[in-house]
Amino acid sequence: MKTIAILGTGGVGQTFALKFASLGYEVMIGTRNVAEKLASIEKDGYGNPPFSEWYAANRKSVKLGTFAEAAAFGETILNATMGGSSIQVLNLAGANNLAGKILIDVANPLDFSKGMPPSLLTELSNTNSLGEEIQKSFPDVKVVKTLNTMWCGLMVNPGMINNGDHTNFICGNDAGAKSNVKEILKSFGWAEKNILDLGEISAARGTEAVLPVWLRIWGATQNGAFNLKVVS
Amino acid sequence: MKTIAILGTGGVGQTFALKFASLGYEVMIGTRNVAEKLASIEKDGYGNPPFSEWYAANRKSVKLGTFAEAAAFGETILNATMGGSSIQVLNLAGANNLAGKILIDVANPLDFSKGMPPSLLTELSNTNSLGEEIQKSFPDVKVVKTLNTMWCGLMVNPGMINNGDHTNFICGNDAGAKSNVKEILKSFGWAEKNILDLGEISAARGTEAVLPVWLRIWGATQNGAFNLKVVS
Repeated sequence: MKTIAILGTGGVGQTFALKFASLGYEVMIGTRNVAEKLASIEKDGYGNPPFSEWYAANRKSVKLGTFAEAAAFGETILNATMGGSSIQVLNLAGANNLAGKILIDVANPLDFSKGMPPSLLTELSNTNSLGEEIQKSFPDVKVVKTLNTMWCGLMVNPGMINNGDHTNFICGNDAGAKSNVKEILKSFGWAEKNILDLGEISAARGTEAVLPVWLRIWGATQNGAFNLKVVS
Repeated sequence: MKTIAILGTGGVGQTFALKFASLGYEVMIGTRNVAEKLASIEKDGYGNPPFSEWYAANRKSVKLGTFAEAAAFGETILNATMGGSSIQVLNLAGANNLAGKILIDVANPLDFSKGMPPSLLTELSNTNSLGEEIQKSFPDVKVVKTLNTMWCGLMVNPGMINNGDHTNFICGNDAGAKSNVKEILKSFGWAEKNILDLGEISAARGTEAVLPVWLRIWGATQNGAFNLKVVS
């Protein structure tokens, strides 16, 4: 049975956990402190119910552990943490637990400290990116950046709009890892022709820079269930 | 007869000059030094023939003047200069020649000093943008940012791909100015439904941030005749 670790307990992590479980994976979600996370009764920043409620409903199909336990458990790792915390979280997960594995990075380095809509974290934008920073910090990990340019509902269910005909970018330094991740994307419903390989992980500078325009399209249309399609 | 000033003699400026001339506008292209520009026999940075050759072929339909002469001539101004030079060029054009007019800004603040593909100029990106910087520097001008997210051939001829069905973003603080620019866009062939208003000029932070991913799509596909379409 295939195993995957989802780092991050927010809406994105929950969405991936249930999708992978539905595809027959053994899934462990990683969090900083399991007892604290389950004891928390606070809604998340988007007004969703506390994680403990979601977990109570889904504990039969999803395991829960620390970041390190999850990283040790999963053959593949998915980073669904806040971009500004990702490096710290991966350090808690442990380089030894990550080494040699594929890390699917769907996070964005958003900076909420300078008003709304958020900007990108200066040190992780323009001439750098979160994807690259993860790759530099964990050289033994095969980082594949993908799916970060859309709402999480579409990430795992592209057929929800336009008959699934819209674009998902992918980049990373390891061709074999990208090929494996493409198979996962296809299992979500992504057509081969709509998975656009932009090259090495430095292309994350491009795909993470989609967020500033994504946020403004969302603001203008009041609908997050959209995506970009490259047409020519 | 309608008049327009095109600031910038590169491929983008040439494309707009001929398009507006074909639509019956009186067009003046502005440049720093007319005599020097016409005397130059150097190809441009993209290997195109020198401006003087282009101008010799098109002088019946396009006038040539200094930035200030062009700005004084045109009821409407179009900024097709390199983004890093735009503020300097507009200062040469003269605030008094620009005041009260619509300035269509199609430029991008690209930084070629840090390798290829270019990044964005730090001071004009993320928490700022060229569009905003122009608006702040020339508060009496009605800045409308649009068309900057694609190759110039598509800007003036959207029907070239996908039956014209792809997205052009527009933003600016003056609703009347945006409405006027929309009419110009329609005269180029843009359908109303494909002109997406993202709000005030600060949304240029989003549309200028398309360039990093645009450049990588271009690199991956080796085809600049593409655009993004928002699908939902």
